[in-house]
Amino acid sequence: MSILIKNVLHNEEITDILIRENKISEIKPNIEAKAERIINGENKAVFPGLVNGHTHSAMTLFRGYGDDLPLEKWLNTKIWPNERNLTPEIVYWGTKLACLEMIKTGTTCFNDMYFHYKEAAQATEEMGIRGIFSHIIFDNLDPKRGEKIKTETKIETLIENFSDRIHFGIAPHAIYTVSGYSFAWATDFAKEHNLIIHTHLAETQTEHQNAIKNYGLSPIRYLNKLGVLNPNMVIAHCLWLDNEEIQMLADNGVKVVHNPNSNLKLASGHQFLYNEMKEKGVVVGLGTDGCSSSNNLDMIEAMKMMSLLQKGWRLDPTALPASEALTIASENGGKILNIKTGKIEAGYLADLFLVNLKTTAFTPNNNTVSNLVYAANGSVVDTVVCNGKIIMENQKVNGEDEILEKANEMVTKLIKH
Amino acid sequence: MSILIKNVLHNEEITDILIRENKISEIKPNIEAKAERIINGENKAVFPGLVNGHTHSAMTLFRGYGDDLPLEKWLNTKIWPNERNLTPEIVYWGTKLACLEMIKTGTTCFNDMYFHYKEAAQATEEMGIRGIFSHIIFDNLDPKRGEKIKTETKIETLIENFSDRIHFGIAPHAIYTVSGYSFAWATDFAKEHNLIIHTHLAETQTEHQNAIKNYGLSPIRYLNKLGVLNPNMVIAHCLWLDNEEIQMLADNGVKVVHNPNSNLKLASGHQFLYNEMKEKGVVVGLGTDGCSSSNNLDMIEAMKMMSLLQKGWRLDPTALPASEALTIASENGGKILNIKTGKIEAGYLADLFLVNLKTTAFTPNNNTVSNLVYAANGSVVDTVVCNGKIIMENQKVNGEDEILEKANEMVTKLIKH
Repeated sequence: MSILIKNVLHNEEITDILIRENKISEIKPNIEAKAERIINGENKAVFPGLVNGHTHSAMTLFRGYGDDLPLEKWLNTKIWPNERNLTPEIVYWGTKLACLEMIKTGTTCFNDMYFHYKEAAQATEEMGIRGIFSHIIFDNLDPKRGEKIKTETKIETLIENFSDRIHFGIAPHAIYTVSGYSFAWATDFAKEHNLIIHTHLAETQTEHQNAIKNYGLSPIRYLNKLGVLNPNMVIAHCLWLDNEEIQMLADNGVKVVHNPNSNLKLASGHQFLYNEMKEKGVVVGLGTDGCSSSNNLDMIEAMKMMSLLQKGWRLDPTALPASEALTIASENGGKILNIKTGKIEAGYLADLFLVNLKTTAFTPNNNTVSNLVYAANGSVVDTVVCNGKIIMENQKVNGEDEILEKANEMVTKLIKH
Repeated sequence: MSILIKNVLHNEEITDILIRENKISEIKPNIEAKAERIINGENKAVFPGLVNGHTHSAMTLFRGYGDDLPLEKWLNTKIWPNERNLTPEIVYWGTKLACLEMIKTGTTCFNDMYFHYKEAAQATEEMGIRGIFSHIIFDNLDPKRGEKIKTETKIETLIENFSDRIHFGIAPHAIYTVSGYSFAWATDFAKEHNLIIHTHLAETQTEHQNAIKNYGLSPIRYLNKLGVLNPNMVIAHCLWLDNEEIQMLADNGVKVVHNPNSNLKLASGHQFLYNEMKEKGVVVGLGTDGCSSSNNLDMIEAMKMMSLLQKGWRLDPTALPASEALTIASENGGKILNIKTGKIEAGYLADLFLVNLKTTAFTPNNNTVSNLVYAANGSVVDTVVCNGKIIMENQKVNGEDEILEKANEMVTKLIKH
């Protein structure tokens, strides 16, 4: 398969982009090559596919359910009782809905953590984007239970054969649900098999206070003492930490995913220490979190929120400019997940999207990246290519009506409380 | 003209809505009435038209120009030098672009402040929505200049005959650009002619500090001492104030417009005292500010930002729930501007919009208002009615291609620095 994108706006210049197999092959004006598919890039701009660094994709089905409640009440009365109704079929369709939404808003790769993760992988395989699916570990802080889970966790059963777009990882849920024992074996297991370790950390003030009460240490210091901080680790949130802890993350090559919408909506906090992490060399990516806390999977919206929040709480209008927000949401996402995606450059995977410039968001077009980050939202995305295949054209994705119908059907099986 | 909207979702129930002339006439299921136009409301939900409480509409043409700069540099090198190039024609097309964007995102009424305001009024008249256009007063703190402007300001020339959708006001720009003398006469003038007084106040820490330095009083105390706080006054921002000043606003019936995106992007601040104002009875509306500071005019995005920011900085997930955000953006907007809009109720002006529920943002539809505020953005708007006329159907507005073209042409005449 080869695709030639003609006359598209890229870095404020009109160019052509040639895709061969699943990679970007060449970027220059007037490419004279034959290609099986030609995309007319006139009145369009191209951007690297966005990477959603942290989500629980099938939670699309909880969208708008139990909003505006205190955290404990929301979890105890709305989310957890209904999650007991989850089936592989429900997760499959919830993930299809998530993939549909991600494709429509320019995301071509996501880092997922949820139950029935193989059905989530299957749904993603069919939708044409990339995903990393992690087996969640909860041992309720009981090392004996942790040992049982360890014995049952075999690489042969954890991983299944899908295409090269589908990856697997391991996800000890959080320090308040998983024992130190399980964090330790999961880390060894991940190192042995070169898997990503996906976890939540330093998300709320309560978590911070409880860690000090229970372990005598703040969350990151606790994991540091356990010796589990390592370069395979991708941690979501990291809101409640100090400079010394940022240094621990940097020293151990730990990756961080910021989820501004979720952090605000759940009132976890809003002063994410982006500059401080960047300064010490921590790679930061961007995520939406699940739709039960952020309500959508629109990474373009998330870029704006991230950038504006930094400016707002720092009282500094130059903080986190638009171009840096785009890098965080694309290239850094690839770095965090160790996948060569998120950049429009020869040799990178052909994961990209085209936006329609004949829209109010891009009129006038004084600055294409500013307009993407600050004026637009996911609705400007017109065409999406992932792994060298066109998966959306003219804003249409195959089978979208069926996905919306099935999602509405599944929610009646899921939400009963 | 009469319109019958059939089988539309409203307050989580399917109903019909009858519009006669420019007003909502009846809301109940199965209305048996003849109407000149029938709108099929199946798979759609209806919401009151949103009211943008503070904007500089023609600044759409500055969208994305000079982002991420320090405030003074942005104003001195990007905005002010180019504003000298403004002509009536530029403002006319900039405002048409703004109206197009507002219609597409569900806004049917806006409170505007900019140069060449009669051309802005003309553009809005043609586009079919409501606007209040204020003559801006700048006297550079010079009462003599203020007196000259006073002499020139006649009600006969300030107001022109347009339809009942177009209103006029007076806008002393801010306390750092307008003398106390001009604030006083503008207030008298507004009272005499029952006009809105539109101003910026307590926006930045610098303004706050300078007011104390120059007048010995914080901004609101200064206007209170001048005796100009009154119920016709609509003030944008109000970020830097204390409880005593909120009481002054309440006692004098002053209306406040919160602009969360602009406040973050310009790094003016983020801790808007919504709860405190509400408690004391200050009516608060929502605005986007101009596109040079907020980059778009999407009031649906602004509702989410407002609600999430309150939760975030207060560390309270129950702060400003979705339904209250919608009330602020619609009904409160009508109250602030003294126009019977922003509510779907018999007797109110027929200003409303329909969203498409066959979208990911409304799938599943566990809660229609939550989905609008937290999951959606302006792109879900399908049909817009203003003043009893359909001004958008199937996401198409008359003349939109010409507006985009003309806006791109105008920007070449506007931005030369």
